[in-house]
Amino acid sequence: MDNIYSQRIEMLRSLMSSKGWDAVVISGSDPHSSEYPSDRWKQVQWLSGFTGEAGDLVITLDHAGLWTDSRYFIQAISQLEGTGVELHKTRVPEEVPIPLWLKQEFGDDAIIALDGLSVAACDALDLPGTVISVPDMLNKFWEDRPAIPQTPVYTIETGESRQQKISWLREKISASGFDAALVSSLDNVAWMLNVRASDIEYNPLVISYLLVTKDRVLWYVIREEDIDEQTQACFDEISAEDIDILPYSDIEYITSEFDGKILLESSINYNIYSSLKAANAEFELQRSPIALRKSIKNPCEIEAMRQAHITDGVAMVRFLYYLERSLDAGRELSEWDLALKLEDIRSESEDYTGDSFQTISAYGPGAALPHYITPKDDAPVLRQSGLYLNDSGAQYKTGTTDITRTIPLGDCTALEREDYTLVLKGHIALAKAVFPVGTAGCQIDALARNALWENMRNFGHGTGHGVGYFLGVHEGPQDIRQNFNSTPLCPGMITSIEPGIYREGMHGVRHENLYLCEEAGTNGFGSWLKFEPLTLCPFDCSILELDLLDRNEKRWLNDYHKKVYETLSPLLPEHIAQWLKEKTAAI
Amino acid sequence: MDNIYSQRIEMLRSLMSSKGWDAVVISGSDPHSSEYPSDRWKQVQWLSGFTGEAGDLVITLDHAGLWTDSRYFIQAISQLEGTGVELHKTRVPEEVPIPLWLKQEFGDDAIIALDGLSVAACDALDLPGTVISVPDMLNKFWEDRPAIPQTPVYTIETGESRQQKISWLREKISASGFDAALVSSLDNVAWMLNVRASDIEYNPLVISYLLVTKDRVLWYVIREEDIDEQTQACFDEISAEDIDILPYSDIEYITSEFDGKILLESSINYNIYSSLKAANAEFELQRSPIALRKSIKNPCEIEAMRQAHITDGVAMVRFLYYLERSLDAGRELSEWDLALKLEDIRSESEDYTGDSFQTISAYGPGAALPHYITPKDDAPVLRQSGLYLNDSGAQYKTGTTDITRTIPLGDCTALEREDYTLVLKGHIALAKAVFPVGTAGCQIDALARNALWENMRNFGHGTGHGVGYFLGVHEGPQDIRQNFNSTPLCPGMITSIEPGIYREGMHGVRHENLYLCEEAGTNGFGSWLKFEPLTLCPFDCSILELDLLDRNEKRWLNDYHKKVYETLSPLLPEHIAQWLKEKTAAI
Repeated sequence: MDNIYSQRIEMLRSLMSSKGWDAVVISGSDPHSSEYPSDRWKQVQWLSGFTGEAGDLVITLDHAGLWTDSRYFIQAISQLEGTGVELHKTRVPEEVPIPLWLKQEFGDDAIIALDGLSVAACDALDLPGTVISVPDMLNKFWEDRPAIPQTPVYTIETGESRQQKISWLREKISASGFDAALVSSLDNVAWMLNVRASDIEYNPLVISYLLVTKDRVLWYVIREEDIDEQTQACFDEISAEDIDILPYSDIEYITSEFDGKILLESSINYNIYSSLKAANAEFELQRSPIALRKSIKNPCEIEAMRQAHITDGVAMVRFLYYLERSLDAGRELSEWDLALKLEDIRSESEDYTGDSFQTISAYGPGAALPHYITPKDDAPVLRQSGLYLNDSGAQYKTGTTDITRTIPLGDCTALEREDYTLVLKGHIALAKAVFPVGTAGCQIDALARNALWENMRNFGHGTGHGVGYFLGVHEGPQDIRQNFNSTPLCPGMITSIEPGIYREGMHGVRHENLYLCEEAGTNGFGSWLKFEPLTLCPFDCSILELDLLDRNEKRWLNDYHKKVYETLSPLLPEHIAQWLKEKTAAI
Repeated sequence: MDNIYSQRIEMLRSLMSSKGWDAVVISGSDPHSSEYPSDRWKQVQWLSGFTGEAGDLVITLDHAGLWTDSRYFIQAISQLEGTGVELHKTRVPEEVPIPLWLKQEFGDDAIIALDGLSVAACDALDLPGTVISVPDMLNKFWEDRPAIPQTPVYTIETGESRQQKISWLREKISASGFDAALVSSLDNVAWMLNVRASDIEYNPLVISYLLVTKDRVLWYVIREEDIDEQTQACFDEISAEDIDILPYSDIEYITSEFDGKILLESSINYNIYSSLKAANAEFELQRSPIALRKSIKNPCEIEAMRQAHITDGVAMVRFLYYLERSLDAGRELSEWDLALKLEDIRSESEDYTGDSFQTISAYGPGAALPHYITPKDDAPVLRQSGLYLNDSGAQYKTGTTDITRTIPLGDCTALEREDYTLVLKGHIALAKAVFPVGTAGCQIDALARNALWENMRNFGHGTGHGVGYFLGVHEGPQDIRQNFNSTPLCPGMITSIEPGIYREGMHGVRHENLYLCEEAGTNGFGSWLKFEPLTLCPFDCSILELDLLDRNEKRWLNDYHKKVYETLSPLLPEHIAQWLKEKTAAI
């Protein structure tokens, strides 16, 4: 086999033989369990060629396997061809997860090596046998391995000073019996310090750790000595607040920086976990209290998020106008062209720093895959019929957006019209819901599905996820899905509502807005919450089956469209404002 | 204090002093954790005078306290007057549960005595200090303590032989690594052996234990030597199947009857738990596999349940007809009169063996209490206005029923009409739901609440509970409520749907039917379930606010009423059938 990936795996196997390792586990994550690891940590891709967002490799002396889920089966089969790596399917009934597979192969006697930097401790602890952490294991083979990114760092206004946040965290952990906390998720670090950068794709984050002890705050961050002005100003501001800025790699000396018991995030990497263990440090893994606090946006963040959504709404309306006019004019447009066009329009805003995830620009059958990846080459070209789905979002310095619109391009089948309408009916049912304080997402998820269920239709993904304030587009701890997540929805939380329908080989529909959870009043029955739409962009009404919507649903849609028009039209050129007026006319 | 209860407590205290006990815990349960313990185990009532269905006593040398929840606060305050027993509120934010209270009083050093027969092991294990089980502790003071009931025992047809059930249980426990199972919940025993009796109020059960080992089946049941013919025939039939019938009290020798590991139900009493512990027996507490199996009714049970509901529907229609005609004729009727009248009508069926719980017959403000107890003396008299609520059920030899109807007696306020309609709207929304296989009750509970939530109204109890086949009217493991019970609803399960609204001092509304969960087909989106109504009785349409119901809701109601009329009218006298025709006319 002369495949480059099989060669790399053989190199790793010779290391394994010389060290006496039975198996190596390579994870697709980074030291901070980031959703989008930077290129440096694309170890799975370097070893196997597989580029999917979720996948773990296990290499033994006579087997190489990639564990991934159904979103990536087809991609994995194609990309693994000739590598000698076999696909192991996860999230299927017959799944044999990695720990079980290793146990079946080796019993409890194996020596398993892994790069503890890129594996979460909770995953490493599930493995059988003796687990050895070998940080940066692939460095000796991977000559041009990318460095840790070092993009400019800057501070932002969030309505709450870092000193307030540090005091709050100290009180919180002290009340739970801790003397220190290691903040290791990058969005938690960014939230604590009110800093942003672009170290991570789609996420405005700085690769770093933050240690908060009873009397000190230490920020472990990598930056060359010759740093840019903006970063210097940020560092100066932070240093002036008695926060020590240390080299990123100094995190290995963390045990000398605190006394007593330290709180680690549940997603902490195995390298830090095992050094603390080796040093006999007192620690506990828990969901960080920052997660819930960060999910509840303060008035300053809410106001900024509203602004971000106005900016994004203007971009989306311009994009939809462009799409309609271009098709009317007979211009040939591919899915890829449209993804680029939308990025172009969004990037005209001076607040825009990038997309918040990879745009799904999908026409016809492509849209039937909820996690469709638009191909750069030979992307399907739109025709004047059927449905085009665009799921995209942006990072503005004022906030994070995420929106899906499904656009009829001309003639649509009865089934397309019905699916389109039923999904919107489900969206509206949840969007206009009023619910008691204390309600968790899984308790109202059915409201978004009921219109589909009545017609024996459904969708296989969650109804909604939390969204950060100029942070990750996927943010916990709340969500709206069938899983029993007991976190109640709280005023100030921002969550998507995005039901869909997917028909393989035919079409896909998804309607997504972001909503702010707000108080709706108190009466004899208790206190109430509701959703306020943040996303401002019309839903196309041209193919709605109006008799499937009741009068309350129509009223919600008309009210929403009125708000869209009134907010956006003053910010649009006259001819697009006029177009928007037609698109938002009452039904 | 010459109050009889304070005297009894003082007697107990002298025993405590002589034995060196710091506290005695008296629970309101029986050795089988039955919902309705027989009089023999009304120890809380004997000691304190409190008659509520839920309450536990803690007696120390200088304090006596009753722990109960808000349903019984008013009753407890009144009944505990002069006894020296103080009310401790449970299920309130400031609750100090018994284990914590004892810990605050005594730290971990107390000697706590309890009647292990009437306390669940899981509760006893929560207590601090040294816990001593003193079976039948009160016997020496309680001279006329009632005996264990011994009502006639009989076998019933259930579509599945006891040998089939025993084989199934043996396979089930063996697959989980057990060598024996002790069946201790009375409904599980009755289900296993296809026997019924009337040892427990409202429940057709035999007080007994069943031990199933790899090669033996032992039934521990109390019956005098001179037993009735029916019971003798039942015992003969069971003995002929090589099931050993042993005295109830022989359960204390259980450890000699099996080798290996025994499965105990999670609700096992502390007495059995501690004897097994003392004998070093190998055991584990788990939810019995019988619970899920029993909840899924087989075709024979389903057919019988349908029959029971036809019988009950006829009785209910006759009752509603009587109510309307009597009021029209100006007859004076109290809540109590009506409860009796309904019992009379139901008891005309030869299959009727009793009510399935205490009838709630409530007019006006009484109905605003979901757990209202109709007073025997001076019960409120109905007038020709407002709402009368009747929540009742029967045990027929063919099955168990549970129904609530809210009846407008004449003029109703706009609020009464609106509440009445919104609750029905919620009921219908859930009743007509179609949902995917795997859905748990908590995931669809909101469908029954959404119509209320939209108007910022709600109810504080569960939406639905499982119902047994001529067994308990409340039966797990499934339910429909906000709590995160992950048990999916399965075809064959019978569950109530009973949303409500309660306005203190004004009125209460509840609309309850029982539904059978059924398959609704399979398509590209998966497999689907739906509810089929078992309860057959009209909902009064005279005060419906018709514009609050959409056309699908009206269609459901008309279809349901058509089924009610077609099924029941042939079984009713001509004039009542005619009345039913009007009551079930399409809206």
